[in-house]
Amino acid sequence: MIKIKIYSVGKTHEPWLEEGLDMYATRLSPWAQIEFIWLKDLAHLEKALQNEKNIILLDPIGHQMDSLGFADWFYKEVERLGSRISFVIGPAEGLPEAMKKQGKLISLSRMTFTHQLTRLILIEQIFRAFEIMKGSQYHK
Amino acid sequence: MIKIKIYSVGKTHEPWLEEGLDMYATRLSPWAQIEFIWLKDLAHLEKALQNEKNIILLDPIGHQMDSLGFADWFYKEVERLGSRISFVIGPAEGLPEAMKKQGKLISLSRMTFTHQLTRLILIEQIFRAFEIMKGSQYHK
Repeated sequence: MIKIKIYSVGKTHEPWLEEGLDMYATRLSPWAQIEFIWLKDLAHLEKALQNEKNIILLDPIGHQMDSLGFADWFYKEVERLGSRISFVIGPAEGLPEAMKKQGKLISLSRMTFTHQLTRLILIEQIFRAFEIMKGSQYHK
Repeated sequence: MIKIKIYSVGKTHEPWLEEGLDMYATRLSPWAQIEFIWLKDLAHLEKALQNEKNIILLDPIGHQMDSLGFADWFYKEVERLGSRISFVIGPAEGLPEAMKKQGKLISLSRMTFTHQLTRLILIEQIFRAFEIMKGSQYHK
């Protein structure tokens, strides 16, 4: 079982988005356990990341992949790093430069989204990655 | 009042996503009227687009912009084309080549999303574009 932590900073919780996140977390449950971790500010995020090893940071200027590329990359990261991976979604003002050196920087889009929407996009891509790996019809 | 039509092809309707779309459509209501149009297949989409002039097609390989670039581009498109714009989200198998010539091709991401999620990302970016244009704190 792969354990995926998704760290984010911010306050807003839209109930409908929580429902969407729950749906994907349930669909992912045969393969991966997803844990959402909310930090109230950057200082708390920095502290929380001190205990993490395999950190993937999401940033609009990070490395871009298409969904097949992401699935392939994700699979290799799991093989290379082991079964614990932490994704980090930065605050509105962006990730501090020092933090960007703590892990690999990837981009879901050149566009900026709310951190809530970013969580949803990320979890859908992780689910899609598993569906691609098992060769299902989800990603045609 | 700007009229924006968002065409998409597909069947699934997640209630939580509809709620999110409604939330953004309500927030956009002072500036723009959003109409979601569902077509059951590509043939119906092709037919519907025959009556549209200002077509923007979403495709992973289209022109990428960051959110500020999108806001700027969107504002110029509205000035240039007038107050009626139609966005088109293709089916899972992609947009046919002939259709790609009917309008400008833009990309929200190199990644593939469900058409439902694409609608949510698009409407959030349109809302963000209006917030950027009025200089609010939504996009810092």
